[in-house]
Amino acid sequence: MELWFTEKHTPNTSLSFKVKEVLYSSHSKFQDIKVIETYDWGKVLLLDGLVMLTEKDEFIYHEMIVHPLLFTHPNPSRVLVIGGGDGGTIREVSRHKEVKVIELCEIDDEVIKVSKEFFPQLAHSFYDPRVKIHIEEGSKFLKHKNSIYDIIIVDSTDPTQVCESLYSEEFYHSLFESIKEDGMIVIQSESIIITPQRVKDIYVKVRNIFPQIWLYLVPIPTYPGGIWSFTLASKRYSPLENFNKKRWENFPYSLKYFTPEVMRASFSLPPFVKKIIEEEK
Amino acid sequence: MELWFTEKHTPNTSLSFKVKEVLYSSHSKFQDIKVIETYDWGKVLLLDGLVMLTEKDEFIYHEMIVHPLLFTHPNPSRVLVIGGGDGGTIREVSRHKEVKVIELCEIDDEVIKVSKEFFPQLAHSFYDPRVKIHIEEGSKFLKHKNSIYDIIIVDSTDPTQVCESLYSEEFYHSLFESIKEDGMIVIQSESIIITPQRVKDIYVKVRNIFPQIWLYLVPIPTYPGGIWSFTLASKRYSPLENFNKKRWENFPYSLKYFTPEVMRASFSLPPFVKKIIEEEK
Repeated sequence: MELWFTEKHTPNTSLSFKVKEVLYSSHSKFQDIKVIETYDWGKVLLLDGLVMLTEKDEFIYHEMIVHPLLFTHPNPSRVLVIGGGDGGTIREVSRHKEVKVIELCEIDDEVIKVSKEFFPQLAHSFYDPRVKIHIEEGSKFLKHKNSIYDIIIVDSTDPTQVCESLYSEEFYHSLFESIKEDGMIVIQSESIIITPQRVKDIYVKVRNIFPQIWLYLVPIPTYPGGIWSFTLASKRYSPLENFNKKRWENFPYSLKYFTPEVMRASFSLPPFVKKIIEEEK
Repeated sequence: MELWFTEKHTPNTSLSFKVKEVLYSSHSKFQDIKVIETYDWGKVLLLDGLVMLTEKDEFIYHEMIVHPLLFTHPNPSRVLVIGGGDGGTIREVSRHKEVKVIELCEIDDEVIKVSKEFFPQLAHSFYDPRVKIHIEEGSKFLKHKNSIYDIIIVDSTDPTQVCESLYSEEFYHSLFESIKEDGMIVIQSESIIITPQRVKDIYVKVRNIFPQIWLYLVPIPTYPGGIWSFTLASKRYSPLENFNKKRWENFPYSLKYFTPEVMRASFSLPPFVKKIIEEEK
C-alpha cells in the first residue's frame, strides 16, 4: 500500500508527501494533531491537516521568525512567544544569552506534549530554566498586560477557529500595549502567493497601530505558495539600522539560513508584493 | 469529473493543480507537449509532464533569468538564448533597447508553435525583427562559434534525454568560447531543495572554466522545492559591482519581480546553500 498525505493549499492546488508511517494521531480539545514520517521531509507535524513543520525545512521558518528581532533589540531580556507549541521558536530565542525570561503562551498543551515526544530537536528548549509556559488563549493572556515584554513573537497557525482572535485589530492593539516603549513584535503573516489579501489585511491593521512596520519574505518549500511573509513592527528600533553586529559576531551557534545579509535581503520586496500591501483597498 | 494534474517532484513529493481543460496535447519529435488550463495558475505549459511555466508565476523566472545579466553588461548588443522556446526569456531580453540581435536556439519548433498559439503574452517577441530563430540542438549549434555573443542565457528544461548535453563540461566550455572577452552567461541551474547535488555539479563545472561565478536564488512557487537557482558566470563584469543604474532608471517597462535591490538580495546565500556549493565532494 502507498500512503500519501495531501494538503490542499487551495481547493485547486495541493502538495503531497509519501508517508512511511503515521506516528501519532489524536484529537485534542482544540484540533486534530498528527505526526507522520515522510520519505522526503522527515517527520511532519500536522494540525487540522495543515503542515506546521517538517524536520527538513523547519530551520528556515524558525530562524527567520526569531533572529531579525532578536539581533535588533539591544536588550531582549523578556520575550513572549504566542503559539509555537512545537518549541522551534523558543529554541531559536533561547540561543540568545541576553534573554532572561522566555514565556510561551500556547492554547493547546497537547501540541507541546507531542513535540516533546516526536520532535526533541525542537522541544529541548522546554527544559531551559528561563522558559515559562502558559496554557491559555493568546489574546486573553495579553489582556491587561502593560509594557512588560521587550519582544513578542506571534507564531500562530492559520486563522481557523482555534486562533481567529490572533488576527484581530484588538489583538494587535494588545500586542502594542504589552511591549515596552522600545519593544518589537513579529507576526507570521501567511502566504504572499496563496493568500495575498490576508497578508495585506494583517499588514494594514498592524501599520495603523505601530509607528514602524516592515514586511519580509522567506521561501519555505512546504508552506502554501512557497513564499512566506512575516510582519515586523517596532516602537523604536529598525532591523535595517539597529542590527547588533557585535552580538552576531559573538553568536556561538551556526545557523543554517539566517545571516545579516540574508535578513537584509528578505526585506527587499519585489514590486508585485509592494503593490499588494500598498494599494488602497 | 474532477481533473487533476500532478507533477512528481521526487518519487515521494508531488504538486497538483485542478484542471479546467486540457487545451493541447501532442508528441513532438522530442517530447510530450501539453497545455492545460488550471483554476489557480492560469494556463500551464508541460513538457514531458513537467511544469515549464504557469501564467501566474512565469514573470518571476523570466525576469530573474534575464535582467541581472542584461543590466550588468555595458553593451549587450548580441544575445543568445538556448532553449526558452516558450518566448518568455526573449520577451524580457527584447525590453532592452541596447540589444541589437536576439538569437534563440531551440531544439523543438513545436514548443514555439504551441507558445504562439496559447501564450501570446510570452510569444509576442518572436515577431520582434531583432529575433532570429535557430531550430537546432544547443550544444551542436555552439560548436565552432568563437567570441560572438555578449550574453548567452541557458533556459533549458531539466536534464532529461532532450537536453542532457546542456549539462556537460564540454557544453560549458563552448559557452566560454562563444562569448566575447567581456561576455557573460547565465544558466537555470535547478532546485536547491530537491536536487542540491545537481546545483552543485553545474556550479563546480562552470567555476572550473569561468574566472567569475555567482549562484543566485529565486523563489518560484510552481517549481520543485520552490527555491530555484541560477548560475551566473562572467569574464569581466560583476552584477554586484557593474550594475548599470542609469539604464535601470530609464527603463520604460514596469517589472513585477526584478529591482536592483531584489537582484542583490537574490545573491545573498543562506549558509546551508553555501555549504552545498562550497563543500569538497
